[in-house]
Amino acid sequence: MSVPKLCQQFIYGGDYNPEQWLDRPDILEQDIVLLKKAHINTVTLGVFSWSVLEPQEGVFRFEWLHKIIDRLYQNGIRVILATPSGSRPRWLAEKYPEVLRVREDRVRYLYGERHNHCYTSPVYREKVAVINRKLAENFKDHPAVMMWHISNEYRDECHCPLCQQAFRKWLKNRYQNIDELNHAWWTTFWSHTYQSFDQIESPSSIGEKGLHGLTLDWKRFVTAQTTDFMCHEIRVLREAGVQQPTVVNFMNDYTGLDYYKLAEHVDYVSWDSYPTWHHKSDVLTAFDTGMQHDLMRSMKQKPFLLMESSPSSPNWQNISKVKKPGMLMNAALHAVAHGSDSVQFFQIRQSRGGFEKFHSAVIDHYGGEDTRIFKEVTETGVVLETLAEIKGSQVNAAAAVIYDMESRWAMESAKGPRNEGLFYHEAALKSYQALRKNGLNVDVINMEQSLEKYRIIAAPMLYMFRAGIEEKLRGFVQQGGILVMTYWSGIVNETDLCHIGGTPHGLTDVLGLRSEEIDGLCKGETNHFLPLGKNGLFMKDRYECSHLCDLVHLDGAKPLMTYAENFYKGYPALTVNNYGSGLAYYVCADAEMDFYLDLYRNIIAEQNIPPVMDSIPEGIEISSRTIKNTEYVFVQNFTEEPICIRLPNEAEILFGCYDGAIQGYSSVIYRKKTQLPQK
Amino acid sequence: MSVPKLCQQFIYGGDYNPEQWLDRPDILEQDIVLLKKAHINTVTLGVFSWSVLEPQEGVFRFEWLHKIIDRLYQNGIRVILATPSGSRPRWLAEKYPEVLRVREDRVRYLYGERHNHCYTSPVYREKVAVINRKLAENFKDHPAVMMWHISNEYRDECHCPLCQQAFRKWLKNRYQNIDELNHAWWTTFWSHTYQSFDQIESPSSIGEKGLHGLTLDWKRFVTAQTTDFMCHEIRVLREAGVQQPTVVNFMNDYTGLDYYKLAEHVDYVSWDSYPTWHHKSDVLTAFDTGMQHDLMRSMKQKPFLLMESSPSSPNWQNISKVKKPGMLMNAALHAVAHGSDSVQFFQIRQSRGGFEKFHSAVIDHYGGEDTRIFKEVTETGVVLETLAEIKGSQVNAAAAVIYDMESRWAMESAKGPRNEGLFYHEAALKSYQALRKNGLNVDVINMEQSLEKYRIIAAPMLYMFRAGIEEKLRGFVQQGGILVMTYWSGIVNETDLCHIGGTPHGLTDVLGLRSEEIDGLCKGETNHFLPLGKNGLFMKDRYECSHLCDLVHLDGAKPLMTYAENFYKGYPALTVNNYGSGLAYYVCADAEMDFYLDLYRNIIAEQNIPPVMDSIPEGIEISSRTIKNTEYVFVQNFTEEPICIRLPNEAEILFGCYDGAIQGYSSVIYRKKTQLPQK
Amino acid sequence: MSVPKLCQQFIYGGDYNPEQWLDRPDILEQDIVLLKKAHINTVTLGVFSWSVLEPQEGVFRFEWLHKIIDRLYQNGIRVILATPSGSRPRWLAEKYPEVLRVREDRVRYLYGERHNHCYTSPVYREKVAVINRKLAENFKDHPAVMMWHISNEYRDECHCPLCQQAFRKWLKNRYQNIDELNHAWWTTFWSHTYQSFDQIESPSSIGEKGLHGLTLDWKRFVTAQTTDFMCHEIRVLREAGVQQPTVVNFMNDYTGLDYYKLAEHVDYVSWDSYPTWHHKSDVLTAFDTGMQHDLMRSMKQKPFLLMESSPSSPNWQNISKVKKPGMLMNAALHAVAHGSDSVQFFQIRQSRGGFEKFHSAVIDHYGGEDTRIFKEVTETGVVLETLAEIKGSQVNAAAAVIYDMESRWAMESAKGPRNEGLFYHEAALKSYQALRKNGLNVDVINMEQSLEKYRIIAAPMLYMFRAGIEEKLRGFVQQGGILVMTYWSGIVNETDLCHIGGTPHGLTDVLGLRSEEIDGLCKGETNHFLPLGKNGLFMKDRYECSHLCDLVHLDGAKPLMTYAENFYKGYPALTVNNYGSGLAYYVCADAEMDFYLDLYRNIIAEQNIPPVMDSIPEGIEISSRTIKNTEYVFVQNFTEEPICIRLPNEAEILFGCYDGAIQGYSSVIYRKKTQLPQK
Repeated sequence: MSVPKLCQQFIYGGDYNPEQWLDRPDILEQDIVLLKKAHINTVTLGVFSWSVLEPQEGVFRFEWLHKIIDRLYQNGIRVILATPSGSRPRWLAEKYPEVLRVREDRVRYLYGERHNHCYTSPVYREKVAVINRKLAENFKDHPAVMMWHISNEYRDECHCPLCQQAFRKWLKNRYQNIDELNHAWWTTFWSHTYQSFDQIESPSSIGEKGLHGLTLDWKRFVTAQTTDFMCHEIRVLREAGVQQPTVVNFMNDYTGLDYYKLAEHVDYVSWDSYPTWHHKSDVLTAFDTGMQHDLMRSMKQKPFLLMESSPSSPNWQNISKVKKPGMLMNAALHAVAHGSDSVQFFQIRQSRGGFEKFHSAVIDHYGGEDTRIFKEVTETGVVLETLAEIKGSQVNAAAAVIYDMESRWAMESAKGPRNEGLFYHEAALKSYQALRKNGLNVDVINMEQSLEKYRIIAAPMLYMFRAGIEEKLRGFVQQGGILVMTYWSGIVNETDLCHIGGTPHGLTDVLGLRSEEIDGLCKGETNHFLPLGKNGLFMKDRYECSHLCDLVHLDGAKPLMTYAENFYKGYPALTVNNYGSGLAYYVCADAEMDFYLDLYRNIIAEQNIPPVMDSIPEGIEISSRTIKNTEYVFVQNFTEEPICIRLPNEAEILFGCYDGAIQGYSSVIYRKKTQLPQK
Repeated sequence: MSVPKLCQQFIYGGDYNPEQWLDRPDILEQDIVLLKKAHINTVTLGVFSWSVLEPQEGVFRFEWLHKIIDRLYQNGIRVILATPSGSRPRWLAEKYPEVLRVREDRVRYLYGERHNHCYTSPVYREKVAVINRKLAENFKDHPAVMMWHISNEYRDECHCPLCQQAFRKWLKNRYQNIDELNHAWWTTFWSHTYQSFDQIESPSSIGEKGLHGLTLDWKRFVTAQTTDFMCHEIRVLREAGVQQPTVVNFMNDYTGLDYYKLAEHVDYVSWDSYPTWHHKSDVLTAFDTGMQHDLMRSMKQKPFLLMESSPSSPNWQNISKVKKPGMLMNAALHAVAHGSDSVQFFQIRQSRGGFEKFHSAVIDHYGGEDTRIFKEVTETGVVLETLAEIKGSQVNAAAAVIYDMESRWAMESAKGPRNEGLFYHEAALKSYQALRKNGLNVDVINMEQSLEKYRIIAAPMLYMFRAGIEEKLRGFVQQGGILVMTYWSGIVNETDLCHIGGTPHGLTDVLGLRSEEIDGLCKGETNHFLPLGKNGLFMKDRYECSHLCDLVHLDGAKPLMTYAENFYKGYPALTVNNYGSGLAYYVCADAEMDFYLDLYRNIIAEQNIPPVMDSIPEGIEISSRTIKNTEYVFVQNFTEEPICIRLPNEAEILFGCYDGAIQGYSSVIYRKKTQLPQK
Repeated sequence: MSVPKLCQQFIYGGDYNPEQWLDRPDILEQDIVLLKKAHINTVTLGVFSWSVLEPQEGVFRFEWLHKIIDRLYQNGIRVILATPSGSRPRWLAEKYPEVLRVREDRVRYLYGERHNHCYTSPVYREKVAVINRKLAENFKDHPAVMMWHISNEYRDECHCPLCQQAFRKWLKNRYQNIDELNHAWWTTFWSHTYQSFDQIESPSSIGEKGLHGLTLDWKRFVTAQTTDFMCHEIRVLREAGVQQPTVVNFMNDYTGLDYYKLAEHVDYVSWDSYPTWHHKSDVLTAFDTGMQHDLMRSMKQKPFLLMESSPSSPNWQNISKVKKPGMLMNAALHAVAHGSDSVQFFQIRQSRGGFEKFHSAVIDHYGGEDTRIFKEVTETGVVLETLAEIKGSQVNAAAAVIYDMESRWAMESAKGPRNEGLFYHEAALKSYQALRKNGLNVDVINMEQSLEKYRIIAAPMLYMFRAGIEEKLRGFVQQGGILVMTYWSGIVNETDLCHIGGTPHGLTDVLGLRSEEIDGLCKGETNHFLPLGKNGLFMKDRYECSHLCDLVHLDGAKPLMTYAENFYKGYPALTVNNYGSGLAYYVCADAEMDFYLDLYRNIIAEQNIPPVMDSIPEGIEISSRTIKNTEYVFVQNFTEEPICIRLPNEAEILFGCYDGAIQGYSSVIYRKKTQLPQK
């Protein structure tokens, strides 16, 4: 099947719900005028339109959608068309209650909210097939339709009898016989041995909640079943003749699904980005958001789409802060800098009622073009048009952070050294941020991906070793790579069984040590890292650590720093081991940000890894995208104040005001020639 | 039907439950002796007596109640007689489970607690009719019975199938056809369109919880159904020949019902007042409680009753603090000052067991008269007798605060600019307190009431415009009134649909502006109001604001103050517009108390509105009641220390010690001649 | 039935689960080698082994257990054999759902977790009888089996229909007729009168939750039913010929059961001790844990067993901190010092999976003997062998703290002066700690025990008077005892009905006062105690108090201190009354620790009560055990630093390094001759 290329402009637009305004043709006409004024070239239609498309079972109403799409197309606006499975009509739930989800405590939901179908239900799959097929038949050949958006923000889980049956079948397929499963889940503990697969029930607050192997496999099943449902949706479209690419939209740091598994089956990955700008330091928010952008890009190792974002404030966060002047464009360019080929908003026109009626929109309740937000949307549209040459370019990353969902599930379900917080996300973010602040583009990958193209691998808290990661890391270091592993790594296997005989499992020789004990620190309790002698590596002579302190037994590794307090004062806190042509560092405790900054600065210098830019001032984020030997460097100021910065002499400014400084909430984009990526 | 007048003493007494002591006639005799000593003239009987009155279905026991009432009457003590529907007997729930409430998650309660009947159940209505009729037949002609108390503290809601049916019927009556309802609730959002009324289910944590139109109408229905139940109770009494007035008792700032709707159908409104004296500043507590008193009085624009209060500590608050010496009397006079014609306690004799066994009482477990509390009850009884001439007098208020339950329901259900707190009650209280501290009596009204008699209307956070309030406010300003409106006003219509075309809806010309954006401020985040030039209006040159900041677009209004910080520094923060003969102020953000104090001081001075008293020191609360041209002024010290104050020369002291100062926790009441109320 | 004596070594070992490793005979062999190296002499087997012992209904597998026990015995290791009822097999729950518990909201649990059987279910009782009988038949005569461990940590409650029936029957037996019950529970309040026992339902969040008499009796029933279940388990063993003693294991400050009732029916009491060492001051933790040790010993007034403890960190606390060097042995000796005849760990070998896979163990996942923990376990084993002569010795206590579960249940269920915290445990701990710091061994008893052997009785917050405690206390003081009673005592009778006529009920003459009011203090609010004149009794002239302040009316007692603030400034805060040959103190408010320290120092000095040791420095805990006229004194340092201390000249050091100081986390044990215990 051939997938048509997207055209050569960045996609600019957002979710549009004209079905809410069918009794107001004047408003729909006015919308088109305003969209064109705003330089919007694409809208997403059909998300949540099922009740209007099929108001009664088997009765279809597509005329309005044809009319809208035609009218948009006549005005040069393209369409991303969504399947409507994200929220089903009431008649469907009323007639077929099996489509309603069952909660973990075995209570079936009433009709309501959204994203709440049982993904196992044959009836729901059939009804989705019918409406998807109709949509495909109606619009597969429409020239405005550039992409198919599969459902919306798949999420959550169902514990109904149909799902229990599917789970048992999935487990039987995985383990073949019940003895294997009993061993894998270590069910002899507390006498929980299963006599047959038929006894298995999903985890529940009124049943099994501490059988970690079960919890882990349940989460895997939820991802598998959701993926299967999504593939079912896509299959229907393809069988009906749809040729355009498919896209699915993800959410920020969502732990309910392993997105990698879904990403395999769509043409594009996209996500809905709603950072809490202006709540805390915007610089921190930018790094946190940037890590998500990079995660999305890394999944398919190609440009992703920003499917939703907020023109100003969303309405469902605790506090809805309006975006300050400049933030809208800076956030848009931030996505592009990290590899997005689109900037899209939720929503085009603000709804008059319902849950999100106060979510900001391109066209608000007032409805005029003389608003601050509308003006900033328009300016951003103009800018994106001038940047068209960047579309489709790649991001070349010398370093990667391993951030793995299955390991996270296992780690956060287990009862371990710190049940009130392991800070896994924060630990990954520290490594990510330290690499980024030292000027590198960074991929955010899971254990299944290849490590070959990287110079540095950060492996924070790799609790579970799976997908042969031991061998991949061993090979990576053997061949000259720099590995930075931390405490609480290599503890369990793929079914959350603890490794016996010493950890990090299978890498004790590569790291030159084994972990013996791990001390949980109370809230507010700290220890410190001190340098051993004049090692000269570090700028500060004392770094704070907290949360978890690993006490290791050295077997070849060289200690670089030691603990300063507690009975383990003098025990190693940072070690390095030569293995093959590479180096394996081990960080024993959850050290503060400055430690990671200095560690990676030294590593990068020692290893001669070229950064995107040198000497990056605090408050500035640097990213780059590359086509062939042209590198586009994005220099973004995420503070309110101007920041002085020296751009390289060869920089050819493509966008932005630069006079030795970059203004608050502003960006400069420049072009430079580059060698082909190293290693 | 003629309603007999109350006699010319303040009602003084409380809830009395002799049915708990029927095996101790010695105690019941002792109670009478003590009541007389305490100058108590009234008790409330029958609240929660159903099990004793009808121990088995159809078996009635009224002898004990006859005996008690006779005995009280012989001793000059009158009776308020309650219908017993607040807590049903077990046999009723056992035989007819439909009378048990169903929780929002569709779980039916077991028998237990109180206030938990299904108000829709035909069986419960029938059984209540039987017992009410019996009560009426037994006591309608008893000379001791002065008033009928309908049930007790109606509250909460039921989601049983009978209530679902009634809700659907109520909605059908309201909207006539399902398309109207779909439009009103904007159900196309998230594809929630109803195909028929039969699909409607009340809001639920396991169903619809974010469909705001549904949530709002459900709350209206709960009030309507509760009112209907109450009317059923009254109808039975009246049909059985009851001639005495009826009363219903309300609770502090209760948001589960719109009390205005119930108030229409009874002769007297009353409430149960349990302030947390001594937990924080008692001055603040006094203003907060005063606002509730004024709300109760404003509902029927006539004296209300204080139905319950605590002699010392209640037992169900987080911390039970005893009342300090003087507080009991000061709190009693506070109710009278704001328009109460009664002072009543819960409870007369402390129960030996059950949920409230540690609630303070006139006669405690010890049982003697030599306790601090008994002495203070007695002193208060004596004082109330000396104040009999004030009974029945009115409160004349030059200002009103609009405090509207339907608007509050809508605002607090919506997902908007601050989901962790809008501070509506606090905003209303600030306006109320500022007006009161500047010496005015204040009414607390809803949008349905007439504005004609007021000089100033405070309209804080009038999120929903309903009941023609736009036109009433327009007319009010047109004819010379002073309107003070704030941020987050005029946003939605009566079904919570956002107004399009600019807000505050329908008043943008009156106010001379429209609201464009609203910024939510994080916890601890602030901005400030600065005066524009030398406007001379304000004492301070800088006021703090927080929570919400409205960014307005002026169209005729004159800015008086501007914001000091953030990107909207310099934007208007306080504006005024001349409209007709009046003025319309607009306060853009949630400013601190001092701002409101200064704003209203200036307005009152400019408009020459005479206060009840000038120059009120901090810690003193001033209120007045008027009969014809006699005004009774209450001067109350709610601090522990004496406060110096200058009483007017014409003041004729009726009660209290005054020597240039008023003692801690003490009151002075004086009489003066006055003109008939202005405007 | 004769119960064999334990042999003359301290029991040293822990829970061992070889059934998890049946496919790894190499590991099981290695375990024996390691156990012997660690000087372990006992293991507990069979806890949670049911699924392995009876993999299908009626199919039994005991060979593996025979083999293990034989092998242990051959290596000199004895066995405590557990009945497996703490966690049932899945097949049992699948075939007989009645064995699954029902939650208080009437939701039946699915299979899962542990400790979740219905203790009323005839089926569960029958199935437990079958497996217990089989166990007994197999092992009653095995010489390795020294003791039978009945189930594991009985806990929680079941609300199923079978339990409801049993509860009604239990109540009928208690009250005989429903009128008695109605009076006892004061059901007339809120019209909750029962017409028959059949209407009774256990307390529920969806039913009765505020009927305190019901709540109290439900808790009593849960204890009675659990005890009955335990007795059923024991009966089966005895009927099958088991001769060895029985033991049951309890938990830290567990409020779900009144352990005294269970203790009556077993030969030994034991408990599972998991203090949060190193989270806060270890000295405080040691006193808190010591109070539990003393409670366990006091129940049967003889040595108890430490059944479980953690070699290093447990895994299920919020934060898992490793034990610092020395802590393991210090905690072990601490148990012994307070009367334990065993030191046992959970667990011998760390499980690879399941809920507690990260709980520390004697043999961890690494599996070697070259770990810090294994070495400390071994050292402790060696030391215990040298202390064998102490085994079986008694603790002689001159003082007792009354700490009563039934009173606690009632107090904490009631809605009273401080619903956000009464601090009962803390109040008891203050008295306990003050007596201990002044050098006394202390018993922790309930109201049912004899007071005869004590010189001092601390009676903090004795809310409920039951079991004739008034008369016992009166007699105790009459005969020369020193009673220290506090606020909130003697308020209710055994069914939580308030006493009328003055409190503390029945002791107002002994105390010389009655309580009139009680003031709840807000969080952070304080008052102070001031000495009256130069009473010379107290070191400080000002003690802080908080939470609750009792205002008393004196009738003979002499005030020693008064309140410093609030309107009750000058009211009595500490009083004393001469009664008979003794003294009755009354402490009016929740005073700070220093107050109690000084109070008891003075009492002990005045009364010439000999302490175990004089002049105890802060950080040191002193305890002693006695056989005949030999006293073994344990001097334990629970800080990190050495502490200087002067041991008595006659001290004959049995264990530990002493050079004028005792090292951090270390103990010294000495022997001295003593007179027979006084009084």
